[in-house]
Amino acid sequence: MGTDAGNGEAGSASVDLLGVLAYGELSAFDRLSEDARLAPTLSGRVALSAMAAAEMGHFALIQTRLAEQGVDVEEAMSPFIAAIDAYHASTAPRSWLESLVKVYLGDGLAADFYSEIAGWLPGATGQLVQQVLADTGHGAFAEREVRAACEADRRVHDRLALWGRRLLGEAVTQAQHIVAERDGLADLIVSGSGDISGIAALIKRLQSNHGKRMVKLGIG
Amino acid sequence: MGTDAGNGEAGSASVDLLGVLAYGELSAFDRLSEDARLAPTLSGRVALSAMAAAEMGHFALIQTRLAEQGVDVEEAMSPFIAAIDAYHASTAPRSWLESLVKVYLGDGLAADFYSEIAGWLPGATGQLVQQVLADTGHGAFAEREVRAACEADRRVHDRLALWGRRLLGEAVTQAQHIVAERDGLADLIVSGSGDISGIAALIKRLQSNHGKRMVKLGIG
Repeated sequence: MGTDAGNGEAGSASVDLLGVLAYGELSAFDRLSEDARLAPTLSGRVALSAMAAAEMGHFALIQTRLAEQGVDVEEAMSPFIAAIDAYHASTAPRSWLESLVKVYLGDGLAADFYSEIAGWLPGATGQLVQQVLADTGHGAFAEREVRAACEADRRVHDRLALWGRRLLGEAVTQAQHIVAERDGLADLIVSGSGDISGIAALIKRLQSNHGKRMVKLGIG
Repeated sequence: MGTDAGNGEAGSASVDLLGVLAYGELSAFDRLSEDARLAPTLSGRVALSAMAAAEMGHFALIQTRLAEQGVDVEEAMSPFIAAIDAYHASTAPRSWLESLVKVYLGDGLAADFYSEIAGWLPGATGQLVQQVLADTGHGAFAEREVRAACEADRRVHDRLALWGRRLLGEAVTQAQHIVAERDGLADLIVSGSGDISGIAALIKRLQSNHGKRMVKLGIG
């Protein structure tokens, strides 16, 4: 069922979940460290560099957890590289503000999604996923910068509002590709959310929280 | 004496030292995260990304220490940006192996230099500097990769041996620029090392340790 690590069905889904999360962190590090170079100020560069480093802190936790299960993190990540790279390629920020909006909304969406799934996983892995997602904590910086820029220029607001909506669409598209190719993950989501209408309700909750975060950024 | 932070002479030198160290960490993060993209393997990319994140962990310690003294890290760093950027611009790696050699030798040289200076500083700051420099700890990866590449191809060995020597020269040049422009740092180094012949002995120790690290990499 999707991995060669010799786990059962639940183990396979759990390894998949940690693998996609790990590659998500590694590629977020990559994007954020590149975006830090776009920062118009030294404090912006420091803030984005610190956010990037925090992603690698999460990565290390996942790597350790997988190693405890006898799974190499690189092996666990490999099935998800193409989809996550495609997401980033299709949503490359063209400005500092687009970077901030992307990391803020992307981190929030990932946290919501994984924390729903973590509740269905056995103890230690579920707790780890919650822990990894709990302490991003650089949101205040993005809120302040984006709000100020939107208040100063209505066209900036309108462009970022479109950008925020598009990010959700691209993320959902790539998430669907991932789940379609990983039977274990698909089974976990269907059984965890109850049935197809449970999945619809899950997506609705993700959309609703995404909208709330756009309001917080001043682009709702 | 070089800073506007209202410290006395010793305070000024100590703020300068933390400032140059902080910008060194931030720019090392920037370089390493960019170099991670050159990695020929996923495990190499993970290793360099983790090293980059560790630099930001050190940065955060320095930032906190400066804040305790009422100094903004950005203000403390600003006098040193030009010289450190010039060092990186003049030593941009052209390959994955050059990246590894640069981070290994650069981290080692910085650790040696700062730990000599830290011994002359008052308690808490001196201890912090030691702590920041103690736990880079990714050296084994670089040693393994560089050694293997050198053993496989003598021309690689010869090119990297030249590269390693050049890095020392460029670092010494930029360090001299920095010290020449910061009276507090110059005074600290002269009084700490005793006199001009003490400085010559310090530079000799740095060169000797640099040479030992080149041997460990297989390019001595």
